[in-house]
Amino acid sequence: MKNIAVLASGRGTNLKAIIENIENGTLKANLACVISDQEDAKALQRAREHNVEALYIPPGPKKTWLVPEVEAQYIKALNDRDVYLVCLAGFMRIIKKQFLDAFPYRILNIHPALLPSFPGLNVQKKALEYGVKFSGATVHFVNEVVDGGEILTQAAVPILDDDTPEKLAERILKEEWRIYTVAINLVLSGKYKIEGRRVIKTE
Amino acid sequence: MKNIAVLASGRGTNLKAIIENIENGTLKANLACVISDQEDAKALQRAREHNVEALYIPPGPKKTWLVPEVEAQYIKALNDRDVYLVCLAGFMRIIKKQFLDAFPYRILNIHPALLPSFPGLNVQKKALEYGVKFSGATVHFVNEVVDGGEILTQAAVPILDDDTPEKLAERILKEEWRIYTVAINLVLSGKYKIEGRRVIKTE
Repeated sequence: MKNIAVLASGRGTNLKAIIENIENGTLKANLACVISDQEDAKALQRAREHNVEALYIPPGPKKTWLVPEVEAQYIKALNDRDVYLVCLAGFMRIIKKQFLDAFPYRILNIHPALLPSFPGLNVQKKALEYGVKFSGATVHFVNEVVDGGEILTQAAVPILDDDTPEKLAERILKEEWRIYTVAINLVLSGKYKIEGRRVIKTE
Repeated sequence: MKNIAVLASGRGTNLKAIIENIENGTLKANLACVISDQEDAKALQRAREHNVEALYIPPGPKKTWLVPEVEAQYIKALNDRDVYLVCLAGFMRIIKKQFLDAFPYRILNIHPALLPSFPGLNVQKKALEYGVKFSGATVHFVNEVVDGGEILTQAAVPILDDDTPEKLAERILKEEWRIYTVAINLVLSGKYKIEGRRVIKTE
């Protein structure tokens, strides 16, 4: 089984689902470590509770990205643990070229909207304010464009008349927990090809 | 029952669904007339076959919109027939201010994508090239922004690995035929309110 790592800044509910799905055999991967840019991230605590190595790597001076010296520390930690696939799960830092080049098509992100609609932050609020009747979740490869990489899988979630950003976020999260596992399994299996921007199963 | 009109430039498959749904009682409306900017539009022929008045109103000198004198002819034809709601169904002209002001929140359009993703033309091709895993259909009020009005209803359609623009268009069309009726019934019932951009049912 190949090694994966989860990078998270917050609650780590997607991490929780990944751990559960590894434990119940749905996700065929070995979780080598969890890394956070936040020392008190609940994600690190979750990792420790499941005997998964939890690393805090201080994010350095910038708010939304990691300076090259810090990225190098993240890359080294991942390579030292023979990580094949990096899974961002609420990791609030933009990944830059050095990091991308170290893991080409080996970094995934999950986003709580049906991209290309509503990239960025506060997307449930944006979706409700726009008035769409469906939102959802997207797992995509990470590239230089925030929320812009090739899409591995999506789930559509209906928006209800009495939705709030919080209620919608909860329903989308349930789909996130499910499809992240689907996408990780697909990448680890290697049974896909990329044609243009389309990710297509080969078996 | 309130009068509706359909404006169409082409095959008129959404018109066909509207006629069928009126005939089978699903759509509670009276189809007062069908108007086209194309004399040989199949939509006009369909209307005649169902004893619905079919009007060809020449589009004038511009390719993508109607000059004010022509818009006035469309407005007069609709008002002469006491039309409450105008349903665009593959009508390939942009509706301008005079027309919008004559039918405020009384012009609908159907678009074969999950707006705000993929507005404009050739949207199935755009969706496939972007690599989304869901597209769909959207019924929205028409305003000054092409495909930008408030959304009444949407349907999500999964994209398959072997899809072509044609195959995807066919599957989306089936949802279009269903949801246009849902949206027209909602507007004619009056049982909705618009909060910001959100269209919300009131009963």
